[in-house]
Amino acid sequence: MTRAASALADPYRTRILCPSSPVHRRDPAVWTGPGAPVRPADAAALTAHSADGYHVVDELLSPAEVQTYWNELVRLSNDENLAADERVIAEKKTGEVRSIFEVHRISPLIAELVRDPRVLDRARQILGSDVYIHQSRVNYMPGFKGTGFYWHSDFETWHAEDGMPLPRAVSCSIALADNYAFNGGLMVMPGSHRTFVPCVGETPADNYKNSLQEQEIGVPAERDIARLCGVHGIKQFTGPAGSALWFDANLMHGSGSNITPFPRSNIFLVFNSVENALVEPFAATAARPSFIASRDVVPITR
Amino acid sequence: MTRAASALADPYRTRILCPSSPVHRRDPAVWTGPGAPVRPADAAALTAHSADGYHVVDELLSPAEVQTYWNELVRLSNDENLAADERVIAEKKTGEVRSIFEVHRISPLIAELVRDPRVLDRARQILGSDVYIHQSRVNYMPGFKGTGFYWHSDFETWHAEDGMPLPRAVSCSIALADNYAFNGGLMVMPGSHRTFVPCVGETPADNYKNSLQEQEIGVPAERDIARLCGVHGIKQFTGPAGSALWFDANLMHGSGSNITPFPRSNIFLVFNSVENALVEPFAATAARPSFIASRDVVPITR
Repeated sequence: MTRAASALADPYRTRILCPSSPVHRRDPAVWTGPGAPVRPADAAALTAHSADGYHVVDELLSPAEVQTYWNELVRLSNDENLAADERVIAEKKTGEVRSIFEVHRISPLIAELVRDPRVLDRARQILGSDVYIHQSRVNYMPGFKGTGFYWHSDFETWHAEDGMPLPRAVSCSIALADNYAFNGGLMVMPGSHRTFVPCVGETPADNYKNSLQEQEIGVPAERDIARLCGVHGIKQFTGPAGSALWFDANLMHGSGSNITPFPRSNIFLVFNSVENALVEPFAATAARPSFIASRDVVPITR
Repeated sequence: MTRAASALADPYRTRILCPSSPVHRRDPAVWTGPGAPVRPADAAALTAHSADGYHVVDELLSPAEVQTYWNELVRLSNDENLAADERVIAEKKTGEVRSIFEVHRISPLIAELVRDPRVLDRARQILGSDVYIHQSRVNYMPGFKGTGFYWHSDFETWHAEDGMPLPRAVSCSIALADNYAFNGGLMVMPGSHRTFVPCVGETPADNYKNSLQEQEIGVPAERDIARLCGVHGIKQFTGPAGSALWFDANLMHGSGSNITPFPRSNIFLVFNSVENALVEPFAATAARPSFIASRDVVPITR
């Protein structure tokens, strides 16, 4: 099949010239595989994940662990050796550290977390196979002036710009600060992962250099967001530090601003199935750097 | 007393050159007066208003009334005769109508609402006297791209720029759309009305022309906001359309952004006691126009 023919056959076409209707996603959110573990997720969690595209694990980390990781984030954000590192993304207006990518290769503590059975085995359960880290990062959202992220599907970008074939990936967002309804926590549309929303606009070269700060390409149309919201509604991820949100790669999500004094930080780990390794980008001229989208498909083991 | 001496004696000094500690407010939030009505607010509502600086009235407007006023807001925002009116404030980025001031003199329907016993008598109860409209407006917050308002005390501005002597004023914000926790509704710090936070910075001439879109002067220091928040916490005003938030002039409040498809609109009426008529601004060279701060102290009657 030529590249053009393959693009036409792609069920997840995006970055297109003219608006196109959202499409029903055929791939499951919870995969089954012969070698997948049967813990720690119970049947209710997997059912919720399949139906809603996400589930929450309370107290994934203990209060003491939260403190340990919080200190690690403070240490990383003050690490002068990292200041000029391209994996460190700064806030557009203030220059403050907003995210550190590939953090599991920077921090031994976070490398350990990735291999922790509470995390790794749940990812393997959901994806029904061995897994590897597609992307990892820590996010810092300051109080008073935290800016949000507009509605998007991660998979739309990963497919278009990274060449991820199918939405057989799952994100784990671990809150290191309490998430209130009012300090810019994640909003999700439960069940929206079953719909793929193509986005209009060609991907510019080196798009990621801007899109990590403010996304302009890969943004769903307001009409599509309104329809999805009408069908699925909006839920907020709230709860104490240490809780984790596991969500499907194609779940529609976003966040508002944070003017409260309560900063938020989280650890964000994206697991991809080793059977879903990246190929050429589906809608970009060049793949993004490996610290944003790893091509190192080695199964994680304990 | 000279003007300088009077400024020194002012318990609500603000727009100062150097940071200054917040001060305890001596004036009450609920005033008593011989002629004040005994309805519609009950004792519990008045007690809450005194302690927290606000109270909520569910279903102040019926669903049918909400629809009527919603239609009126749509009509006003499309009224070509108002397009060039200085009382119409547009969104900085998009040019869309954000607020219409002095709306009770523009819309007969809203003029009627101001005289409605459900509204007028409650204002007279709280302020313990006859009242007049210091400011009225309707606010439009669009979905998808609604911007919020940073933390502030209205009285700080009204005192500094309008010459309102005491915080003997009350605001009534009537929701015309459902307020969720996630569509940019008002956040308040319960009890913060008992503390007056002086703000640093001299008031520029014609400050209101910018401050109605984005406030830069009259903004409390982050340290003061954090302290108030630590003591009082944050509550959100949520609830169905038709509910009303009554809040003290000095309550610390703000709002976040709104990326959801749910727009919000509200009617905002500020009642001031006729015994608290405006004088010269306490910290500005010229008073703001009357459509923002009325000097027409005529008691409202039914």
